[in-house]
Amino acid sequence: MPDALADVPLPAGPPEDQGREVALLALVAAGVLSSFTGLADDAASAPDVVTRVALTRMAGALPAHLDPIERAAVARSADLGQQAAPFLALLADVDARTAGGDWWERVVKTYVAGGMVIDLHRALSEGVDEDVRAVVTGALVENGHAAWVVATLGPVLAAEPQLAARLALWGRRVAGEALSLAQTVVRTRPDLVAGPPDAAVAGLLSAMTGGHARRMGRLGLTA
Amino acid sequence: MPDALADVPLPAGPPEDQGREVALLALVAAGVLSSFTGLADDAASAPDVVTRVALTRMAGALPAHLDPIERAAVARSADLGQQAAPFLALLADVDARTAGGDWWERVVKTYVAGGMVIDLHRALSEGVDEDVRAVVTGALVENGHAAWVVATLGPVLAAEPQLAARLALWGRRVAGEALSLAQTVVRTRPDLVAGPPDAAVAGLLSAMTGGHARRMGRLGLTA
Repeated sequence: MPDALADVPLPAGPPEDQGREVALLALVAAGVLSSFTGLADDAASAPDVVTRVALTRMAGALPAHLDPIERAAVARSADLGQQAAPFLALLADVDARTAGGDWWERVVKTYVAGGMVIDLHRALSEGVDEDVRAVVTGALVENGHAAWVVATLGPVLAAEPQLAARLALWGRRVAGEALSLAQTVVRTRPDLVAGPPDAAVAGLLSAMTGGHARRMGRLGLTA
Repeated sequence: MPDALADVPLPAGPPEDQGREVALLALVAAGVLSSFTGLADDAASAPDVVTRVALTRMAGALPAHLDPIERAAVARSADLGQQAAPFLALLADVDARTAGGDWWERVVKTYVAGGMVIDLHRALSEGVDEDVRAVVTGALVENGHAAWVVATLGPVLAAEPQLAARLALWGRRVAGEALSLAQTVVRTRPDLVAGPPDAAVAGLLSAMTGGHARRMGRLGLTA
C-alpha cells in the first residue's frame, strides 16, 4: 500500500522559487479589490452627482487589472483566491481603523493609503520575475484619483487653514496605519522579500514614507 | 425696467419636447450609478475571494454605460447631474429599506430590484426618440449577474426548502418596494410617460411584475 501511495503524484503547486512571485500577485490582487471597494464607497458617499460619476469611473477602471494578475497566477498553478484572502483581511482591518469622519477625511484616506499601498507594491516588485513585475507595474497605473484629489481638495485646503491642519494630522494617522500594514504583510508572508526581512522592511518603509511626503506636498500639507 | 428684463434671454434648456428623453436619461444614469454601488457592496460582503472577484468584475462593467448617456444628455443641453439627483435619492431610499439580513438576502435583493429596475427603464423607453432609446437599451445589457445568481443560488435553494421559503418572502418584499419606487418615480417626473399617468403606471407595473415572476421562476421560487 505505501508503494501504491508513493505512485500518486504530488499536487501541482508553484515551484518553490515562485513563492515570492505568487505572494506578490496575491497581494496586488487584494490591493486592487480593496481599492475598488474603497473608491466605490467614496463614490456612494460623494456630495454631488458629478463627483459620484467621476469616482465611479475611476473605480470601474480597476477590475480590468485583475485579468493579467489572474493569468500570471494560473500560469504558476497558484490558487489566487486562497492566497489573497489573508491580505484582504489585513486590508479590511486597516480600512476599519481609518474610516474617516467626514467627506474630506475619506478622500484623504483613499489618497494617502492608496498611494502608500502602490509604493509598497512597487518596492516589493523589485527583483521578481520580469513578467510578474510587468503585471504588477501595470496594475499600479494611476487611475486619475491622485490628480483629482489635488485638483479638488488642494484649493479648499489653501483657503481653509483649520481644515488643512486637521487633514494633515489625519493624513499622518492614515500613513501610520499603512506603514504598520506593510510590516504585518511581510511578517505574514516573509517570502515576499529577499534577504533579511528587517532590512527589506526598512527599505519598504522608506519608499512609502518618501512617496507619502511627496503626495502630501502636492496638497500643500506637511507629511 | 420690465422692458429691459424682457430682453434677457431665457436660460438655455432642453427643448420642451425633449423633457421626456432627458428625464429618462437621468433616471437610467441614476440606475447605473445605484447598481454599481449595490454590486460593489455585494462584492465587499462576498463570502469568498472568487465571488468577490466575480462581482467586482460585474460592477466594473457598469460605469462605461454612463458615457453614451452623458453624450446624449449633453446633446440636449441637459444637466444630467442635477436631473439625476432626485432619482438617486429615491433609489438610496429603497436601498436602505431593503438592506438584507444576510448574504443570500443581499444577493436576492440585487437580483430582484436590479431586474425590476431594468424592466422599468425598458418600458419607459418605449416611444422615446430612437437615439435615446438605443442609448437606454445599451445601458440595460445584462452584465452576467442574473445568470450568476441562478447558477449559484439555484442549487442551494433546491437543497434547502426553508431558505427557499424565506427568500421567496424576501423577494416579494423587495418586489413591493420596486413597484412602489416606479410609482414614486412617475409622480416625481410625470413627463417620463406619455398620456394619462395612471394608465402608464399600470403598464409599467405590469411589465415589472411579469419580469419579476419570470426571474423568480428561474430560481425555482414563486413570485
